[in-house]
Amino acid sequence: MSTTGYGVIEIVSRKALCRGFGGIRNSGKSIPLAERLQVVYEGIREVVTTYAPEHCAIEDVFYHENVNTAIVMGHARGVAMLAAQQAGVAVFEYAAREVKMSTVGSGAASKQQVQAMVQRLLNLKTLPRPQDAADALAVALCHYHRIKFRNLKTALK
Amino acid sequence: MSTTGYGVIEIVSRKALCRGFGGIRNSGKSIPLAERLQVVYEGIREVVTTYAPEHCAIEDVFYHENVNTAIVMGHARGVAMLAAQQAGVAVFEYAAREVKMSTVGSGAASKQQVQAMVQRLLNLKTLPRPQDAADALAVALCHYHRIKFRNLKTALK
Repeated sequence: MSTTGYGVIEIVSRKALCRGFGGIRNSGKSIPLAERLQVVYEGIREVVTTYAPEHCAIEDVFYHENVNTAIVMGHARGVAMLAAQQAGVAVFEYAAREVKMSTVGSGAASKQQVQAMVQRLLNLKTLPRPQDAADALAVALCHYHRIKFRNLKTALK
Repeated sequence: MSTTGYGVIEIVSRKALCRGFGGIRNSGKSIPLAERLQVVYEGIREVVTTYAPEHCAIEDVFYHENVNTAIVMGHARGVAMLAAQQAGVAVFEYAAREVKMSTVGSGAASKQQVQAMVQRLLNLKTLPRPQDAADALAVALCHYHRIKFRNLKTALK
């Protein structure tokens, strides 16, 4: 765990607009895990306080190639979810494949492809950086697409 | 994740005394993960507030047989560590094998053996229950033994 990315979008007239993004940086393994978790928690808490989102969408870590990394990411994910939950923000979870599929159209898309597509979809002047922030924006867009699709299905019933 | 065990010991005249133990219960998978994490966080927060411990010792989850379970446990562990960290309590981590070795004398000890040994070491009238609370007491005892050993080594230098 070194950077926890976040991205905030707002839907205005059915169009997704980027409101903010960034990375919560951690000093890495030289700092005890409990302290790093506090940094993530406070960072997400600040984002939630600043933007007061309606929903929080988060990528799951269940398909990470390295088990130990996935478990440590689970810790960070836990405190991030807690920060949203405590602010009364509903938390939604998406698989990495689902996010890639939704933004790029392929579950096997590269990180660079996701980054470029996020730039295009949100009409950003430059590539969203760090990579983790681009990923976070992609998760937010994925969530918006899911909701839109769900509402459409309900309307057609 | 269904029960998060905790156990509190106090060292009086170099003897470990049991001050409290129990389990923070969760309704299981029918409740969203973010809500379950909040229950764990608030439970540990309450324990920390009630007993004002000097240290917090926690078992690591890195050797769990099921990867997905280990990741979900990582989430719970993350919020538990956060609760201690926020209260200014130093967090120490121990491998399950290390805890078993320290209490029973064998890294491959069964849960029942750990439970029985914890009862004996802390002079409890009945077996500590739930099992997760017995495990937590074992982690606390392991931490005490480590500190004692470390202090001894320092004294001998």
